[in-house]
Amino acid sequence: MLTPADASLAARLPQGVLRDPGPAYTEEPRGRLKGQAGLVAAPRDVQECAAIIRACATARVAVVPRGGGTGLVGGQIMSDGPAPLILSLERMTAIRDIFPDEGVMIAESGVTLQAARMAAAGVDRQFPLSLASQGSAQIGGVMSTNAGGVNVLRFGNARALCLGIEAVLPSGEVMHDLKRLRKDNTGYDLRDLLIGAEGTLGIITAASLVLAPVPAEQGVALLVVDSPAAALRLLSLAQARLSGGVTAFELISGVSLRFLDAAFPEMRQPFAARPEWLVLVEVGLPAGLPADAALEGLFTQGLEAGLVHDGVIAQSGQQAADLWALREHIPLANRHVGAIASHDISLPLSQVAGFIDDAGAMLAGLGDMRVNCFGHLGDGNLHYNLFPAPGRVREDYDDIRRDLSQRIHEMVVARGGSFSAEHGVGRLKVADLARWGDPARLTAMRAIKGALDPLGIMNPGAVLA
Amino acid sequence: MLTPADASLAARLPQGVLRDPGPAYTEEPRGRLKGQAGLVAAPRDVQECAAIIRACATARVAVVPRGGGTGLVGGQIMSDGPAPLILSLERMTAIRDIFPDEGVMIAESGVTLQAARMAAAGVDRQFPLSLASQGSAQIGGVMSTNAGGVNVLRFGNARALCLGIEAVLPSGEVMHDLKRLRKDNTGYDLRDLLIGAEGTLGIITAASLVLAPVPAEQGVALLVVDSPAAALRLLSLAQARLSGGVTAFELISGVSLRFLDAAFPEMRQPFAARPEWLVLVEVGLPAGLPADAALEGLFTQGLEAGLVHDGVIAQSGQQAADLWALREHIPLANRHVGAIASHDISLPLSQVAGFIDDAGAMLAGLGDMRVNCFGHLGDGNLHYNLFPAPGRVREDYDDIRRDLSQRIHEMVVARGGSFSAEHGVGRLKVADLARWGDPARLTAMRAIKGALDPLGIMNPGAVLA
Repeated sequence: MLTPADASLAARLPQGVLRDPGPAYTEEPRGRLKGQAGLVAAPRDVQECAAIIRACATARVAVVPRGGGTGLVGGQIMSDGPAPLILSLERMTAIRDIFPDEGVMIAESGVTLQAARMAAAGVDRQFPLSLASQGSAQIGGVMSTNAGGVNVLRFGNARALCLGIEAVLPSGEVMHDLKRLRKDNTGYDLRDLLIGAEGTLGIITAASLVLAPVPAEQGVALLVVDSPAAALRLLSLAQARLSGGVTAFELISGVSLRFLDAAFPEMRQPFAARPEWLVLVEVGLPAGLPADAALEGLFTQGLEAGLVHDGVIAQSGQQAADLWALREHIPLANRHVGAIASHDISLPLSQVAGFIDDAGAMLAGLGDMRVNCFGHLGDGNLHYNLFPAPGRVREDYDDIRRDLSQRIHEMVVARGGSFSAEHGVGRLKVADLARWGDPARLTAMRAIKGALDPLGIMNPGAVLA
Repeated sequence: MLTPADASLAARLPQGVLRDPGPAYTEEPRGRLKGQAGLVAAPRDVQECAAIIRACATARVAVVPRGGGTGLVGGQIMSDGPAPLILSLERMTAIRDIFPDEGVMIAESGVTLQAARMAAAGVDRQFPLSLASQGSAQIGGVMSTNAGGVNVLRFGNARALCLGIEAVLPSGEVMHDLKRLRKDNTGYDLRDLLIGAEGTLGIITAASLVLAPVPAEQGVALLVVDSPAAALRLLSLAQARLSGGVTAFELISGVSLRFLDAAFPEMRQPFAARPEWLVLVEVGLPAGLPADAALEGLFTQGLEAGLVHDGVIAQSGQQAADLWALREHIPLANRHVGAIASHDISLPLSQVAGFIDDAGAMLAGLGDMRVNCFGHLGDGNLHYNLFPAPGRVREDYDDIRRDLSQRIHEMVVARGGSFSAEHGVGRLKVADLARWGDPARLTAMRAIKGALDPLGIMNPGAVLA
């Protein structure tokens, strides 16, 4: 049985780690969940972090790790049970080392993703993980949730961008594994086990991150396509032409554009009529192959193949940033409108178009609503979000919301897809995992959780019930 | 306590799975280890595989999984203890499905790597995992050992090329997780845990493999460099110019060339004088950037920077194959000469040159021998192999062999490197792992092993003692 984080635990913690448990530690971005914080502790180094975990283990107190707090599935929010200790990585903000010629940076978990990206840029490299919340999201959270974002198509998710970790295990032991090696086959892959475990198997305190060369040529285009199916054929064409040079391939819908109009009327859009489907294509290419020429070649081939109808190719860094801004403001526009329900799904690429058709038809039969379907098409990862019809409000859909999500997830799973592509399980999707997870896999996950965290103190209630 | 695989177990196995336990099931490539086989069973499908595991669990019989048998660290060889059941995947050879536009292939574990690569080529894609033993090595073994090879620099190791697995867990349960998704954050990463576990946590029976587009432009060059340090500066230069277009960057030594002369005198070499250091550079580039022009640009820049002194750029597919043949025949040439000791090490890139210098000096102080240092320089992965001085034989070094390897591994570990970059731990490196592995990581590994395989039947003695 767990006990609350209280004064007697506080007395056993290392000097000076406690923070005021203000509301910033118990909130999440959408404001739908509210957590508790018996204590908030922010270690300055891994040894203090380990001492906190040992104290919590001794006292049987739940530990909820917290990075930037930007998670969307409640992994950082414990609402029930004895009040936990919130373990914030906010003071572990060192970039311990950077090796430009190796393409490696060692960053502590409290470093924001933005700061990590800037540190890489400072040595003429890139840390190719980019997502909307990067100004707040921290490396520890990014790793613990195996974050994705817009460049997974070329560089993989967080797991693929990490060579090693330092972590405090639930026992309070420190695992020192900050390797800078591209190959190291010496035993079980605990790094990838802790990455994506959402703090339920230990606390990642630092990571050895992969830096990539900045492409010699970079470019962005926004292309109007007939349909998601046409977009995917265009992707196939682009991959064949550019041999790994496509670094992002993002779907934008007409609904996205109209929501941007509503939320950001001052934002200029390149197409006067709002097309129903567009893709934002980003390329990173070798020296000797100018990006605008490569994108024009793709555009022309797409036109000839009947896949593309219109498009703009950025002629400057500013224009490229403006096109990206359209894509990046969609989540904010969504919040402005107010979603009924959001879904972070992925599908095998050949199932994407069929899913969009079938889900649209299914929803049309259930009620009057708007669908904003957008996101990382190149990864088969869609943000499939439902909004009230004009003139109606979120609450009008309260009685069907759960059913809507259930049905969408059912359709996704039936097509071999995932009900959580990049956001994780957290606490909001625990029931989904229990329902759709492979039984043998779930049994093995529970066995691992029991073996590494026998007291059940690490982020209880997240991932596994 | 385990019991031997005997007639009473045989009677409980599914009909028709038993094979004659010939010597092919108890040998390994270097002929140094000899295993035992109480029984050999070859299931035709995952259900038969699961039934075999359940029977072994009931009878407390050790299971040693076997793919192509090409492993170099004895993971497939159990010499001690009650005779095991050898579980051969040789009859699970279906390519179940192939999705060219998704870049995915579902292959059973008994498919050879060569067959998988040919199946990909048949739909105009590549399975970018390539290694010397690919004609025999099977997908199951490749995955279970997280195999590497020559294209890791661009495409990652086996782990990075697998989207999902089907596996039989030690309990006999089947984990169905053959996803075709690029993003799927729904719980612990059991896929990557089983990959690289060398059969100690379960049997991988099929894998969902990543296929990549065939590059629009491909080319190969063999460049003469001053030193490994110069080679690494050239790599840095190539990465900056070619933005991910370098698909292989292999080091070849003068010793390699002279061994090739001895073993394959008919093989033509491009440089009459045998240079001391060379790199084989392979590129895969977008349409519009001819590979020979890109390689010439790199060659010229390397010359100007004083890094490259001579070189050849393949002018045809045949010439490219001939240059690759030099690299690929080095292991055979090594066997012809007969190594005293071999080391599959990796180092942080900035530590490679210093290691080569220091290790050479250390060895010079210990005795008269030849070093063939070659391999996957772009990954920091060297095959650092020691050979008798001319006129002497392997046995002359019997009394110092263990000490030599120990000292080399010590130097590697002191520089943040790995004593097993791509071959794995198997049984030959169990003591190395116990000595150099992080203690907290080892404790966690043992806890996981105990949780998933409480009877200890899965490949006992491999990875963990």
